Amino acid sequence: MTPDSLKNLLEAFKRGDIPVDEALAQLRDLPFQDLGCAQVDHHRELRQGMPEVIFGEGKSVEQIVRIMTAMVGKGSNILVTRLAADKAHDMARLFPAASYHSEARCLTIEQKPVEQKGKGEILVVSAGTSDIPVAAEALVTARFLGNQTSHVYDVGVAGIHRLLARREQLAAASVIIVVAGMEGALPSVVGGLVDKPVIAVPTSIGYGASFGGIAALLGMLNSCAAGVTVVNIDNGFGAACAANLINRV
Amino acid sequence: MTPDSLKNLLEAFKRGDIPVDEALAQLRDLPFQDLGCAQVDHHRELRQGMPEVIFGEGKSVEQIVRIMTAMVGKGSNILVTRLAADKAHDMARLFPAASYHSEARCLTIEQKPVEQKGKGEILVVSAGTSDIPVAAEALVTARFLGNQTSHVYDVGVAGIHRLLARREQLAAASVIIVVAGMEGALPSVVGGLVDKPVIAVPTSIGYGASFGGIAALLGMLNSCAAGVTVVNIDNGFGAACAANLINRV
Amino acid sequence: MTPDSLKNLLEAFKRGDIPVDEALAQLRDLPFQDLGCAQVDHHRELRQGMPEVIFGEGKSVEQIVRIMTAMVGKGSNILVTRLAADKAHDMARLFPAASYHSEARCLTIEQKPVEQKGKGEILVVSAGTSDIPVAAEALVTARFLGNQTSHVYDVGVAGIHRLLARREQLAAASVIIVVAGMEGALPSVVGGLVDKPVIAVPTSIGYGASFGGIAALLGMLNSCAAGVTVVNIDNGFGAACAANLINRV
Amino acid sequence: MTPDSLKNLLEAFKRGDIPVDEALAQLRDLPFQDLGCAQVDHHRELRQGMPEVIFGEGKSVEQIVRIMTAMVGKGSNILVTRLAADKAHDMARLFPAASYHSEARCLTIEQKPVEQKGKGEILVVSAGTSDIPVAAEALVTARFLGNQTSHVYDVGVAGIHRLLARREQLAAASVIIVVAGMEGALPSVVGGLVDKPVIAVPTSIGYGASFGGIAALLGMLNSCAAGVTVVNIDNGFGAACAANLINRV
Amino acid sequence: MTPDSLKNLLEAFKRGDIPVDEALAQLRDLPFQDLGCAQVDHHRELRQGMPEVIFGEGKSVEQIVRIMTAMVGKGSNILVTRLAADKAHDMARLFPAASYHSEARCLTIEQKPVEQKGKGEILVVSAGTSDIPVAAEALVTARFLGNQTSHVYDVGVAGIHRLLARREQLAAASVIIVVAGMEGALPSVVGGLVDKPVIAVPTSIGYGASFGGIAALLGMLNSCAAGVTVVNIDNGFGAACAANLINRV
Amino acid sequence: MTPDSLKNLLEAFKRGDIPVDEALAQLRDLPFQDLGCAQVDHHRELRQGMPEVIFGEGKSVEQIVRIMTAMVGKGSNILVTRLAADKAHDMARLFPAASYHSEARCLTIEQKPVEQKGKGEILVVSAGTSDIPVAAEALVTARFLGNQTSHVYDVGVAGIHRLLARREQLAAASVIIVVAGMEGALPSVVGGLVDKPVIAVPTSIGYGASFGGIAALLGMLNSCAAGVTVVNIDNGFGAACAANLINRV
Amino acid sequence: MTPDSLKNLLEAFKRGDIPVDEALAQLRDLPFQDLGCAQVDHHRELRQGMPEVIFGEGKSVEQIVRIMTAMVGKGSNILVTRLAADKAHDMARLFPAASYHSEARCLTIEQKPVEQKGKGEILVVSAGTSDIPVAAEALVTARFLGNQTSHVYDVGVAGIHRLLARREQLAAASVIIVVAGMEGALPSVVGGLVDKPVIAVPTSIGYGASFGGIAALLGMLNSCAAGVTVVNIDNGFGAACAANLINRV
Amino acid sequence: MTPDSLKNLLEAFKRGDIPVDEALAQLRDLPFQDLGCAQVDHHRELRQGMPEVIFGEGKSVEQIVRIMTAMVGKGSNILVTRLAADKAHDMARLFPAASYHSEARCLTIEQKPVEQKGKGEILVVSAGTSDIPVAAEALVTARFLGNQTSHVYDVGVAGIHRLLARREQLAAASVIIVVAGMEGALPSVVGGLVDKPVIAVPTSIGYGASFGGIAALLGMLNSCAAGVTVVNIDNGFGAACAANLINRV
Repeated sequence: MTPDSLKNLLEAFKRGDIPVDEALAQLRDLPFQDLGCAQVDHHRELRQGMPEVIFGEGKSVEQIVRIMTAMVGKGSNILVTRLAADKAHDMARLFPAASYHSEARCLTIEQKPVEQKGKGEILVVSAGTSDIPVAAEALVTARFLGNQTSHVYDVGVAGIHRLLARREQLAAASVIIVVAGMEGALPSVVGGLVDKPVIAVPTSIGYGASFGGIAALLGMLNSCAAGVTVVNIDNGFGAACAANLINRV
Repeated sequence: MTPDSLKNLLEAFKRGDIPVDEALAQLRDLPFQDLGCAQVDHHRELRQGMPEVIFGEGKSVEQIVRIMTAMVGKGSNILVTRLAADKAHDMARLFPAASYHSEARCLTIEQKPVEQKGKGEILVVSAGTSDIPVAAEALVTARFLGNQTSHVYDVGVAGIHRLLARREQLAAASVIIVVAGMEGALPSVVGGLVDKPVIAVPTSIGYGASFGGIAALLGMLNSCAAGVTVVNIDNGFGAACAANLINRV
Repeated sequence: MTPDSLKNLLEAFKRGDIPVDEALAQLRDLPFQDLGCAQVDHHRELRQGMPEVIFGEGKSVEQIVRIMTAMVGKGSNILVTRLAADKAHDMARLFPAASYHSEARCLTIEQKPVEQKGKGEILVVSAGTSDIPVAAEALVTARFLGNQTSHVYDVGVAGIHRLLARREQLAAASVIIVVAGMEGALPSVVGGLVDKPVIAVPTSIGYGASFGGIAALLGMLNSCAAGVTVVNIDNGFGAACAANLINRV
Repeated sequence: MTPDSLKNLLEAFKRGDIPVDEALAQLRDLPFQDLGCAQVDHHRELRQGMPEVIFGEGKSVEQIVRIMTAMVGKGSNILVTRLAADKAHDMARLFPAASYHSEARCLTIEQKPVEQKGKGEILVVSAGTSDIPVAAEALVTARFLGNQTSHVYDVGVAGIHRLLARREQLAAASVIIVVAGMEGALPSVVGGLVDKPVIAVPTSIGYGASFGGIAALLGMLNSCAAGVTVVNIDNGFGAACAANLINRV
Repeated sequence: MTPDSLKNLLEAFKRGDIPVDEALAQLRDLPFQDLGCAQVDHHRELRQGMPEVIFGEGKSVEQIVRIMTAMVGKGSNILVTRLAADKAHDMARLFPAASYHSEARCLTIEQKPVEQKGKGEILVVSAGTSDIPVAAEALVTARFLGNQTSHVYDVGVAGIHRLLARREQLAAASVIIVVAGMEGALPSVVGGLVDKPVIAVPTSIGYGASFGGIAALLGMLNSCAAGVTVVNIDNGFGAACAANLINRV
Repeated sequence: MTPDSLKNLLEAFKRGDIPVDEALAQLRDLPFQDLGCAQVDHHRELRQGMPEVIFGEGKSVEQIVRIMTAMVGKGSNILVTRLAADKAHDMARLFPAASYHSEARCLTIEQKPVEQKGKGEILVVSAGTSDIPVAAEALVTARFLGNQTSHVYDVGVAGIHRLLARREQLAAASVIIVVAGMEGALPSVVGGLVDKPVIAVPTSIGYGASFGGIAALLGMLNSCAAGVTVVNIDNGFGAACAANLINRV
Repeated sequence: MTPDSLKNLLEAFKRGDIPVDEALAQLRDLPFQDLGCAQVDHHRELRQGMPEVIFGEGKSVEQIVRIMTAMVGKGSNILVTRLAADKAHDMARLFPAASYHSEARCLTIEQKPVEQKGKGEILVVSAGTSDIPVAAEALVTARFLGNQTSHVYDVGVAGIHRLLARREQLAAASVIIVVAGMEGALPSVVGGLVDKPVIAVPTSIGYGASFGGIAALLGMLNSCAAGVTVVNIDNGFGAACAANLINRV
Repeated sequence: MTPDSLKNLLEAFKRGDIPVDEALAQLRDLPFQDLGCAQVDHHRELRQGMPEVIFGEGKSVEQIVRIMTAMVGKGSNILVTRLAADKAHDMARLFPAASYHSEARCLTIEQKPVEQKGKGEILVVSAGTSDIPVAAEALVTARFLGNQTSHVYDVGVAGIHRLLARREQLAAASVIIVVAGMEGALPSVVGGLVDKPVIAVPTSIGYGASFGGIAALLGMLNSCAAGVTVVNIDNGFGAACAANLINRV
């Protein structure tokens, strides 16, 4: 229910077109219907600033196809994350307009042009080559949500000169997503070099005492560079969502 | 070393005013002296967009006084965080211009007016009354760094109507810091209601299986609301630093 | 041994029908024979208010068939939980009366009508679509034990309006089982809205710092809504058992 | 806002006594004002079936007195949990009507008779003498919320005959709260003996690998007795809240 | 080097048959050569009271065959633990004298009769049917090491009457091994009923918060029954080794 | 109730001296009263082979005195463990016959001579000087329960020659308790040198990644020396109870 | 940029051959270009004392081949670690000069003779046969980096005489790498026997409470032998890198 | 027993001065007496390359004085680590020759000049000012063991230019100890800049998710710079012992 439809309801009641009990019923969940619509997708975009996205992991091809078909019918753009290549292959036949980004394991369909709403550029920095899938997920997501992006890969702290050589690129970004596994030290170094928001993404890359990304996660939460915030392990998608909102502030 | 002073050095060398070895020595650490100056404080502000801050916990009164005296001498504004009331009391006699914010356990000295650089308002939301010290640290820090702030306290998820009644205030902020202990569920609910960056701060409030804030931290990292980022347990200061940078994008 | 049979024993001893040593032997385990019978199944129902249930995970088809055959012979109703679809398929040929609930991964045989003993309705609420298997296990179990049930799916806290729109349904239940993965925040919100017992079931849905359901489990244990109790991760069956007992109080 | 006051509002608007914008503003938060009132205490009782309770730990005497004074003014009954003896002593002078339950570390004021709403008796069972403070907190809370109670102490599983001797008392209860530290095995044994809901409360009693109650917590979550639910470590209050709601089903 | 051979060495040196340097070299590792022999198997039996055993997990069929062939050549009895059925099948063709104990996943070859050295009977008690493989490994090992054994299965604490009915059997054992997963409560109850050493074996049976046996392990370490000792998760072999040594004290 | 008193009861009932209801009441808890008596102390000794012991930690002087007074009245010997020196000092005035073992933090009263029931000698070995309090608790307990004891201190694995020099003493014991903190490696080495039961006691000695004894506990549970069993961290008392039972096998 | 090329640059600028802006640009990243070159491989060798190594785990054959081809073209020696046998088999056809070390799961190509730079011998000691793959990785790496090596396998602490018999070999090494799983006690014993640097490598060998190598890792970090340092679980490669640097001090 | 005294023993036996049994007894523990002496201090120096050191934490003044008195009597140099200032003050009166290093919390007595055995300089680098006590312990220890030292403080990764400005000092060291708390990233950066052994020391500095140094410890164990080894949290002493041994290779 939009503000306009609420006014209409009240006027109808005033005119006596609807009885008090019916008005009462319609008004019960007002603040939420106030947002407006029956469509989950539109609703979320209004409320949270980004469209519904399909998390592909653990869903069958059938389930994903059913959701996609509904969204395609509404003319929405579609992003499916964490989609294995074999599932994507199956879908490509059903949705010829779909693009599969294999490094990022994401599938997108753009039925309408993506509106560029971001103010500046979102830069994605990754520590090692093994971290690239998570970085790529962040890049695909950020672009899907309407942002300019760039990236710098393989600039981990054990060869700090590689990062320092890219200082201009760091300085030019409006938000920086830093993706790192193992000890997760890169966000601290980046955070110390720039005056921009830094979103740290720990990855599950590593072995032994990396504990599937816990070491990197803890390192990032304890960053000595003030201003670094953190998302869940391997959550390139979430980092891009946060960067997208920041890029519109 | 500023770009200007670098040019001067090069010209002096060209004129033969300084020999090659001395030029070599001065140029050795060029990229960093390029930023500028011998003073740590100014340096950090240039590089990271905020002045040096003194972390008071675990430092003696003598150590803090020594650092403050140096900074006062340079005309800097000063923020000391995690400063116990008894230590603050001792300092008040030495620095009459100091203000102590007891709830936040912070001390500030403003020798020059704080320049308002933030675009919008930083809103700090806390779940319970016990979370207020962390929320207050975030507020004092955000204001010290040049931002407008507001706050909403005691709107935890077990009485969700309290939060919903503040939806306009949530919608008006440019960045939202959400502070919560125990199960740490509030950031997810807030993140689902707004299209603004949400920074989640877990607190150590709780007992038993809260494990000193781990339960809240994990809850926030696993938030089902995309766009929520997280800082360390009880780190109101860090959340405000991140919000400050976001508020200038 | 019932109280009556104990009296009979004592009288027989008094009459001299049985010697002191035999009386001694029969009396040894008195309090337990007092419960009554040699059959484990009946025993448990008398003692704990619900029949024996077969936990299918980690058991071979042969083992399950052997147990089921014994129970079928006694005319018992049968519930097998955590039964993979391929195993269920094999059993369907041996037990034509069996129904397999694929979402819940449960198999039931009802040889006699399920007696409705529950006072009110057990409502199962789930946060996300991935939590549905656990929710379905709770539903199948609750119905098998003789309760009316209803359910509400996909009302996670990141879109709180979806839950609020179902408040009447929440208010109508006698017990509510809330199933959620990731941050596990839904039970706190539900618990804050109703005056009914809420049983929280964490699920292993999530990735990274969800640690296979630990994040949700901790969130629920630390719920700020008093009156929420918790069962093991993914334990929809256990939640339904508890709800069943509550529904008969 | 009660249903009646909502009707009045609508009628006033219809009569033209209040303009559309004002009606709009008042209706905004309808579903929650629908519950009724500005007073937090009454609100919670309506919504969650129990009055507001003050968690004393970590609050200063001044803070607690301020809240209590407000509640006393409204004629409410008051329960303060986790209140150290020295603080209680200070309050006794300000609130002569207060009773301090030293074992339970709870303070109560009953300005009006506690209404007995529970159907049956809530039984609190504890494993060891060191677990008694948590058990006592559960007892005081359960009585404060309007339930009949009884208790059995020191019946841990290493001397199982002590528990078995109390089987009639177990059978007579409508809900059983089982409090245990160390290995936390008692709820499983109790759960196997009765057909009543069992709420397990792990305590922090133990040393070494008890890890402050984690061993007991895990033991209870993994209980082989179906129907056992669990609350946070040392959370006697929460167990009693859950038992209170169950006792009214 | 035996005491006799040491005496011979000294006498040979005294007679001048060997020079001082050679005597020095031979004496260097005296205390260990003192034990005696080049064969690892015999050595261990002398030193630790049990023959070498082959841990089959993670070893290839080739590796195991190579070790077995060497041991068979020396006339030793052989025990291979944690040997998968398919590997055992391959070995049966090479070693016709081998027996495979499928429940225990152990293979034995008895080239000479097992000498009965144990004083009394080792009783193995298991909580659930899923714990039987670990219990069976303990039984096979205990018998291989020369002990009389008996067992009681499926007497978990949720049906405590089943255990109490076996009290005579408990009382008759000289050592009791108690195997349990989930909450691991059975050893505490057994330990409280008998005056015999109880060795607790946690199993990895369970799910969710059982954490692969950690819950059971912690429960057993925190047992309130003094006199219970614990071995590693699923370590039926180790429990039997300890019971074997105890049975000879 | 002893077997004799049970026979008396039955005969009295047969003679008509007591009515059926009274006999019924007395027989209700037969299997447990069968053990014996209303006195907890005697009961435990009959059932578990050792008298009741008072765990002093967390008990007030008043509580301990109350229990001790009851036990002294019955002529029992008394052991209080984990008793701080200041509390012990207070008790010394009330119980002049008490001895306080300061290193072990134990207090004993021997009203009747301790009966020597152990077959051989219990040897307590400790790795470092800081582990001595736990070792001493084991020694005092073992002697109190009627065993001969000896000890070897400060023979940690970083100076393995110190342990090897004591091999005869190791070989002479019937049971060995090995106490070690830090990496907890000593039990493995001892277990590899002897053919006697080894009970490992991890201590909380250490810092950093010792995590209050977890490192030592895990080391001992993973001992590569078969036959080592483990008790809780710092549980010298429990190790001695187990050794006492083993020493009577 | 080498020191010489820097001098040339400055002289060229002085002569006016290059303008101030170009000099400024070239000098920007001075300290890093000072090291010297565009090739990562050469760079690392200059900076860190060892050539680039390819971590094979998680990389596709295609990725590894691409990197190897580039390195072969430059005449570098190549080491690929954690390379599964099937991948190695595929590569052998493309790179006939490659040697695959199956135990170590490493592949090497030596296009030029390995220069022997190590001063002494690096000794690798392993506790059990299952630890050999990690030990072998250390050996292959150490030799690849230009060191003499030797090894001693299967000398775990449960048979301490095996280690003691190798004391001369221990004394002859310049650095010792000790590889152990389970309780990880071997480095402490070795560290107590020698006056050489000891690098401890925990392995993931074990089960149950070994937690994939955590028990061994903690044991090594808490070693009572001063002078032991530790690397990540299963990190034979890293241990050899450290030993290589130590062997050149 | 030294090699010389062993030869004397053998000759005395050959001459018939001592009978075979006595020779046998004296030779029993040969390999260890072979090292040499009854004095623990000298022994350890011979065996491990450094004298005995007193770990002061948890020891009473009396205990430390007793050990020191014995060592002073032998003319040894003395190092006491982890000694609180108040204890040190008490000792200063008894041992006028003692020096207390307050930052390092160490006390030393040098009765004879420290022999400089180290080849090069041990450099200690610390990330933050709060890490200085651990760094200072490493420095005092390294000097006590006979090494030249230098240090660089407060060069954490959030201001990477501070570290880069000290590259010559890094390059000049023979071994580098890197001390850091919070995310523990500094060793990776240092390890990437030099070709020298780097020993990483995590400190307990931090709060919240630093978990008393675990975050730093994990970061260091997962260092992407090959060649970094790690010691226990806050173990500056152990790092210096390892550096000392490395400095003599």
